[in-house]
Amino acid sequence: MDIISTAKAHGGVQGVYRHRSRTTDCDMTFAVFVPEHEAGEKLPVLWYLSGLTCTHQNAMDKGEYRRAAAEHGLIVVLPDTSPRGDHVPDEPDNWQFGSGAGFYVDATQEPYAENYRMYSYVTEELPAYLAVNFPADTSRMGLCGHSMGGHGALSIALKNPDLYRSASAFAPIVRPTVAGWSKPALEKYLGRDPRTHRAYDTCLLIEDGKRFAEFYVDQGTADQFLEDGLRPQLLRDACEKAGIPLTLNMREGYDHSYNFISTFMEDHVAYAAARLKA
Amino acid sequence: MDIISTAKAHGGVQGVYRHRSRTTDCDMTFAVFVPEHEAGEKLPVLWYLSGLTCTHQNAMDKGEYRRAAAEHGLIVVLPDTSPRGDHVPDEPDNWQFGSGAGFYVDATQEPYAENYRMYSYVTEELPAYLAVNFPADTSRMGLCGHSMGGHGALSIALKNPDLYRSASAFAPIVRPTVAGWSKPALEKYLGRDPRTHRAYDTCLLIEDGKRFAEFYVDQGTADQFLEDGLRPQLLRDACEKAGIPLTLNMREGYDHSYNFISTFMEDHVAYAAARLKA
Repeated sequence: MDIISTAKAHGGVQGVYRHRSRTTDCDMTFAVFVPEHEAGEKLPVLWYLSGLTCTHQNAMDKGEYRRAAAEHGLIVVLPDTSPRGDHVPDEPDNWQFGSGAGFYVDATQEPYAENYRMYSYVTEELPAYLAVNFPADTSRMGLCGHSMGGHGALSIALKNPDLYRSASAFAPIVRPTVAGWSKPALEKYLGRDPRTHRAYDTCLLIEDGKRFAEFYVDQGTADQFLEDGLRPQLLRDACEKAGIPLTLNMREGYDHSYNFISTFMEDHVAYAAARLKA
Repeated sequence: MDIISTAKAHGGVQGVYRHRSRTTDCDMTFAVFVPEHEAGEKLPVLWYLSGLTCTHQNAMDKGEYRRAAAEHGLIVVLPDTSPRGDHVPDEPDNWQFGSGAGFYVDATQEPYAENYRMYSYVTEELPAYLAVNFPADTSRMGLCGHSMGGHGALSIALKNPDLYRSASAFAPIVRPTVAGWSKPALEKYLGRDPRTHRAYDTCLLIEDGKRFAEFYVDQGTADQFLEDGLRPQLLRDACEKAGIPLTLNMREGYDHSYNFISTFMEDHVAYAAARLKA
């Protein structure tokens, strides 16, 4: 593991690290905040999955999660949003596909299947790596994410209800199989058969019988993507039909940016802490 | 005034604006956070002066001041750190002079005297502009700053004890007339006669009889600039000799970055609020 940087913050350590991933067959960079803790103590882990175009750094700089994570004693992990590297196929001018747009899927189509395996990276390889290299209790993990990362948090939770104890999201993409900014990417990663996309669509996973204990979602009413890419009412309908408790806070006047995320981040950290430390 | 961006954050509005400055003879960009408030209400103002290389954006993204500012009802203003523009003389490869390095002085030397007048810009033109264009009560203002901006906050306070009710700093440059990263800039802006530099040196201003009610300073012990550029003991000695109450918190293990600033930002906002709202 390469240590890119570490700095004391809010009593703990904010670090940036790089390791070679077998899953994505490239070097992956990620950020971890570890609060102050007793020697030998293992802390629960909150995963923060970022949105399109982001790396680990956007939320690290602008997410304002450290104060609450330190208060509640949670490790916060921020993975990258895609594989990266000269040998990784990409469409550099397309912000909705390739670098920065892994969509938390395991690609099956060439030439993407070798590297674009962010689902397995985030749910298997990186948790295992954390358990060895950080004071992380990976039996107590929660998920949070924004936009594409909100899709990641909710869909991963539905498929792995035994691995995660909480799932929350900021402005999640809840129907990526039909939204304009995600459907073309899913077709390239997974092929054009829409049945293969269902495993990565929160609303369709629920329709197909997947369940999670409860969801917590914040959505800004001034979000420029609200009516096209996001449509939280689809999640509300799916949860109501399936009997999944959903807290959906429509936040008056907030947009899609980190100004929105940072305002409500402490609520999400507290929400996760209550479930990870119960 | 051009509105570059506005977004709702922590119940208020985080905006970025640009106006033509007479003082610096160029367009100046600045950020303002205005908390939620009653119609017609005027709020006290906390100035945050940034360090070398920064614009308004660094602290806006990474300073984590909005939550506390909203709680205490303070406007926070983040000016740029220098004039900028194609017609503004600069040394683009020198991070300690010119763009991003205005040092909060009024230059007297050619070719800098036309534009590098950040002292007057920050203490006169921008406060007057705020009073007209924002719900700002500029009879209640406080200063805060980091590194070069900490120098700005403390030295401006000493010269204007009637304009400002509080002054605090993160890792301030307290003796810029002798520190390696500031002395060459002062010589270019003000000339080589060291007597002209004294008006911009916190320790020498105190030696020359200037006073302020009290100072509040945080300094990380792992700051890479501690023993060369910063040397807080010089401020302690000067304040002790002059009878100026100084709170100097040596923060174990913290560096010079925004990880340090964001950790203690809420203390500085609360410190200012207690004095601006007394």
